Formats: sequence, structure tokens, C-alpha cells
Amino acid sequence: MALISEFKGGMEFLAKTESGHELVLDAGVSSGGQDKGVRPKELLLVGLSGCTGMDVVSILKKMKVENYTLRIEVENEKTEEHPVIYKKIHLKYIFHLEDESKKDKVEKAVNLSQERYCGVSDMLKKSSELTYEIIYE
Amino acid sequence: MALISEFKGGMEFLAKTESGHELVLDAGVSSGGQDKGVRPKELLLVGLSGCTGMDVVSILKKMKVENYTLRIEVENEKTEEHPVIYKKIHLKYIFHLEDESKKDKVEKAVNLSQERYCGVSDMLKKSSELTYEIIYE
Repeated sequence: MALISEFKGGMEFLAKTESGHELVLDAGVSSGGQDKGVRPKELLLVGLSGCTGMDVVSILKKMKVENYTLRIEVENEKTEEHPVIYKKIHLKYIFHLEDESKKDKVEKAVNLSQERYCGVSDMLKKSSELTYEIIYE
Repeated sequence: MALISEFKGGMEFLAKTESGHELVLDAGVSSGGQDKGVRPKELLLVGLSGCTGMDVVSILKKMKVENYTLRIEVENEKTEEHPVIYKKIHLKYIFHLEDESKKDKVEKAVNLSQERYCGVSDMLKKSSELTYEIIYE
């Protein structure tokens, strides 16, 4: 099994993942594309948010923490020279918790993901300065 | 501007990228999800295929190479321990060229992407053994 990404003309690629899902990739108009799909590089940040996000919600489930909302915002700073990479990545875990006494469990879940479980974080840390914070709304 | 990834329940996240595109992320059924969308980690490989693929097609355009098909296959080998990362990543650039005398240009375009332009390759090389080959069909 392998990921297959097929060139469709212009700058467009159609990817089919190992899990069987399809994604359209395209460059923006200023880079010769038609903006038909997502930029390749930003998928690293999408993957990062989902990887750590799924860790956190599954750890919180085991800890019986319920009734919360979570969104993850990912900020970045790129290098200016080629190859353009993410020099810095900053993750914001933004929670609304019904029971504020659960904050210590939230913190533990986020730290466990970042320090131990999230493979995407572990990979991106090798090339980017990766920081994170927890915010309660 | 930042990427925003919102928890939707279960293991599902809905991400909205800086370029304005939406993606559904979900775990597979065996990992407690419902397979409503792509796995986070495989997005690294999708991003890699698109990053280097767009490099290659834009370099070939500048070299006046036309009339070809390209698909990129990405194979991987993961670690078994946490955090699970891609230990090895192998890219296959599979071309069908009408004019076989252009093979040297294809090779140059692929090498330029891998050695100089592709930021995703540059990042993933720091954590994974990244190899590639060109195949003509």
C-alpha cells in the first residue's frame, strides 16, 4: 500500500491516501496554480493539529473528562530562503471546560501528547522550533 | 492568519487552512474513529508528494518539457514504539514521456526539487530516511 498522487495539469495533484481518502492539492494563483485545493506544505500543520488533537481527546476520554470544546490554532513562521520550511510552529489548544477543576487533566493530556505520543510533533520538532500553550475561554 | 482545527466529537476534527480550504480528519474504526476523513499522519506524505510534485512540474515547464504524465507514489515504514513516526519514506516519480530524449531534464528537475527547493522534503529528512527513484512507464 502506498499513497498515490497524480498530476492533473497546471499545478494540480489528486492524492489518494492509504486510508482511501482523496485530496486535491493546488498552488495559489500567484504561484501559477488555480487554488483548486490545499497547499502541500500547510498539510504538515493540518496533520500536526489532528495528530495531537486526537491524542488529547482520547487521553481525556480515558480520564473521564467530558463536556468541553476544543479548537487548535497553529501559527507559523517560514524561512525566506529556499527550501522554504517552517522555522517556528506555535500550537494553541483552546478549551472551553464546563468543570474548571479538570484543568490539571487537560494540561496532563496535552503534555503527554507533545512529549510522548504525537509522532507528527516528534518529526516536525527536528526541523522547526515547536512551542505550545493552553488557553481557556 | 493561522490554521484552525476544530474538534467535532468522537475523533473527528475539521481543519480550515490558511489558504481557506477545509479538510475532515478522523481516525479509523479500529482506533476509535469513524473514518470520516483522512488520518493526520498521512497528510505528511500527501504534503510531500504535492510539494515535490509542484516543484517538478514547474521546473519542467521552464525547461519546455511537455506531453508527459506523472504520478508520485509514496511508500513508508513506521516505527513500532511511541511516538510512531515514519522511519523510512520512499518516493517513486513515475513518468510517461512522449519524447524519451527528455529523460535528462526529468532527472534534473527531480534532483533540484529534492536537493534544493522542496521544503517538505527538507523538513522530513531530519526525522526520516528519505529516498527516491524515477521510473518510466
